[in-house]
Amino acid sequence: MNNINKAVKELKEQNEIIILTHANPDGDTLGCGFALMGALRSQGKRVMLLNHDKFAKKFEYMVCPNDEVDRNNAYVIAVDIADVKLLGEDLKAEFGDRVDLCIDHHGSNKQYARTTVLNSESSAACEIVYEFIKAMGVQIDTHMAACLYTGITTDTGCFRYSNVTDKTHEIASELIRLGADHAEINRVMFETRTKAEFKLEMLCLEGMEYYCDDSVVVIALTQSMYRESGADESFADAIASIPRQVEGAKIGVTIKEKKEGVYKVSLRTHAPYDASQICAVLGGGGHARAAGCQVEGSLEEVKSIVIEVIKKFI
Amino acid sequence: MNNINKAVKELKEQNEIIILTHANPDGDTLGCGFALMGALRSQGKRVMLLNHDKFAKKFEYMVCPNDEVDRNNAYVIAVDIADVKLLGEDLKAEFGDRVDLCIDHHGSNKQYARTTVLNSESSAACEIVYEFIKAMGVQIDTHMAACLYTGITTDTGCFRYSNVTDKTHEIASELIRLGADHAEINRVMFETRTKAEFKLEMLCLEGMEYYCDDSVVVIALTQSMYRESGADESFADAIASIPRQVEGAKIGVTIKEKKEGVYKVSLRTHAPYDASQICAVLGGGGHARAAGCQVEGSLEEVKSIVIEVIKKFI
Repeated sequence: MNNINKAVKELKEQNEIIILTHANPDGDTLGCGFALMGALRSQGKRVMLLNHDKFAKKFEYMVCPNDEVDRNNAYVIAVDIADVKLLGEDLKAEFGDRVDLCIDHHGSNKQYARTTVLNSESSAACEIVYEFIKAMGVQIDTHMAACLYTGITTDTGCFRYSNVTDKTHEIASELIRLGADHAEINRVMFETRTKAEFKLEMLCLEGMEYYCDDSVVVIALTQSMYRESGADESFADAIASIPRQVEGAKIGVTIKEKKEGVYKVSLRTHAPYDASQICAVLGGGGHARAAGCQVEGSLEEVKSIVIEVIKKFI
Repeated sequence: MNNINKAVKELKEQNEIIILTHANPDGDTLGCGFALMGALRSQGKRVMLLNHDKFAKKFEYMVCPNDEVDRNNAYVIAVDIADVKLLGEDLKAEFGDRVDLCIDHHGSNKQYARTTVLNSESSAACEIVYEFIKAMGVQIDTHMAACLYTGITTDTGCFRYSNVTDKTHEIASELIRLGADHAEINRVMFETRTKAEFKLEMLCLEGMEYYCDDSVVVIALTQSMYRESGADESFADAIASIPRQVEGAKIGVTIKEKKEGVYKVSLRTHAPYDASQICAVLGGGGHARAAGCQVEGSLEEVKSIVIEVIKKFI
């Protein structure tokens, strides 16, 4: 975080800025992006936020319309993005080699940007953007506060995970004072599910499997389950937290079918098991307690590949 | 809270203290009780904590052994108890008319104690006990911090409910600095379920019912469901939060069979529906967003009694 002032100074001189968020956007990357957009606009700059995918409907309250910006010459900021791969193909091709500033909290950050403001102790990149906006001398308004609160609460499972620090709560306190409608944000993020999503959860629970003396719990989420329940893939993250919750489970695995023969595997672990180390074996990465990778094959093949790798760590 | 200093002064002169927690003890009443016990002991006092029921196993990390205390002459403190009825029959009979000090956060507090330290803006009674211990001039140790954090996180659904304020996060931040193992506490309180509990949740979801154009969602929890799943009643609180989570639900109702013909009804509402007003019609009470009452009859009778009352408010 030493270069936060250098980055703020450099930004001051820019007029047109592009903010890149990661593919499959979550609350943290969007919270960073839209909070920063608001802060930069309040300083008279033109800002465009770009994303590879559509935003989930629940994030709409954060969205602000883009300004017209010269895509070839604008200053480029990436938020909550450890690796240019995570931009998605099109944005990676267009901006991957010309990111000016990256604001991130992943210890695994590839340092691809000209300047990287990184703090792997931060629960969410939004904690860093909060400091960043204050360093810019911008007064955080209600909308920015809501965006920043969203990133923090979604990346911490509503202040539940071990990545929360005293600082996380201090910032949340300040964001509530600044007007973030925390209860409503949490209601939308954590306490609202459709009937279809409840049905999908039931289907997942029915198929829950246990390995390694019940220390590894596996849930599979297939395209046919989405069809049967009527729920869509945006609910998969909530499902992914279930397997680790079973008493005695050390590692929770959620195997999500992206398309036939292609699965995204999400790992959630309890200490001392390092999810990012396990996923790294399969070409993925992430945090110590939550990480992911992509594996190809049939569902049964993917399961046994993942279980074999996990067995080496248990 | 004006009389906090008066109460602290009065307590200074006591040598033997009894702390009463409410029946069906939750994280807040126990958190208050054991934190206060630690604080009073650090000032050389003898303290006994009493409860009508057994503690759930998950709360064991807070428990401290009792001192010998003269039950007839000790100073009596009630924590997180709005009404002497909530003490349970035996403690009500023994102490109901001689509570010296009540520390509470329920707006519905019956003012039964000689002195009442009340703040209905506090998310948890533990917020008030935190202030109280500081007013006593006691340094909060790791164990007290864990107890106070437990009360706050359990009464706010892990910082999720609308009762959370900037002050709640400020106190949580301080308790983490003081050593509360927040991630482990939250894991035990919110992220640990047995296989049996997952099965109970499935049974509940299967029987979920919708009323009033899906704005009222009802879950029933019967003794036969406990038997079938192997789960016990301590999991009922987690189930009670489910019905309100359905998209479009204004009021979530959980009907828990205590014994044949006797049901405890838990209401969770979204604004503007006042759960305590609705439950008051049926002789119960609580908070605006979460309240309860007891209704007798068959399950179908209880359901229709509750739905008829709710219809008057919708």
